[in-house]
Amino acid sequence: MQLKEYIHTVVDFPQPGIRFRDITPLLNNPDAYAHAISGLEKLIRDIQPDALVGIESRGFIFAAPLADRLKLPLVLVRKPGRLPKETHAHDYDLEYGQDRLEVHRDDIRDGQRLVVIDDVLATGGTAQATARLLQQAGGQVAGLLFLIGLNGLGGADRLAGYRHDWLVAYDLDE
Amino acid sequence: MQLKEYIHTVVDFPQPGIRFRDITPLLNNPDAYAHAISGLEKLIRDIQPDALVGIESRGFIFAAPLADRLKLPLVLVRKPGRLPKETHAHDYDLEYGQDRLEVHRDDIRDGQRLVVIDDVLATGGTAQATARLLQQAGGQVAGLLFLIGLNGLGGADRLAGYRHDWLVAYDLDE
Repeated sequence: MQLKEYIHTVVDFPQPGIRFRDITPLLNNPDAYAHAISGLEKLIRDIQPDALVGIESRGFIFAAPLADRLKLPLVLVRKPGRLPKETHAHDYDLEYGQDRLEVHRDDIRDGQRLVVIDDVLATGGTAQATARLLQQAGGQVAGLLFLIGLNGLGGADRLAGYRHDWLVAYDLDE
Repeated sequence: MQLKEYIHTVVDFPQPGIRFRDITPLLNNPDAYAHAISGLEKLIRDIQPDALVGIESRGFIFAAPLADRLKLPLVLVRKPGRLPKETHAHDYDLEYGQDRLEVHRDDIRDGQRLVVIDDVLATGGTAQATARLLQQAGGQVAGLLFLIGLNGLGGADRLAGYRHDWLVAYDLDE
């Protein structure tokens, strides 16, 4: 199965010049969705982590069924103010301004081997911030896995210190 | 298994007077998470829908593994500006101000029987808005299912015209 057939490129979204990779056709097709989850499942089995981490909010769409299939704990990394208990927080720079990610202190055990799941690796800013947040919380980042990797935006360089992989790659002009 | 053991009540979050039901301990426990998903799966099998709808963003955490288990299409209902293609939108009133939900036009087929999934039914405002949005898009709301139902906040009344259910109920002062 060619997963790209179920990922649509929407030009100039959310801003002019951006080619947005829309995964909703894949989610609408049970065979394509199952194929994507199975591909990520195989990568996770090679790493044998203790828990999976989903990045809000599209990361949840893959981390959740993977946690269910693999019987692994699911940890949420969320935007500020959404987790009710004590959190670790990590601030990171965006093109304009800053953003923050949080994780519950209770959710990470010392030395726990974690695999981070998100839908798209672009510049790697969010993924790198998540990795640092998890390390700050005492966890070990055993891998970062994505459905889609976008070439030419620096994501792979930013994650060079971590095991990372994706199922489908796109060139910038593709 | 008592799912309530894995749902923590956090007092005064996000505002004074609110008792927030925190599902992260449940997500961290694979047996509890699987038990919750299986409970919802059983309710969905009774309804036999054509597709599942997850409400951003905690709804995704249950709708996604259910779509995976049941091999059903997964449709996302999202906050404004996040879906890249043409959408249907529905505005609804909050206690202060308004909010909006969107769904891709392409994702709903005429007469398609949909089951909506979210983590918590409180006042029912978001759930009702989702149901109306899906009807406006041509779908048929065959049911709305929640992990948690909060008594005393009017949610069940607001969904009186729709089949709805939840796995765990809480009284206001519980």
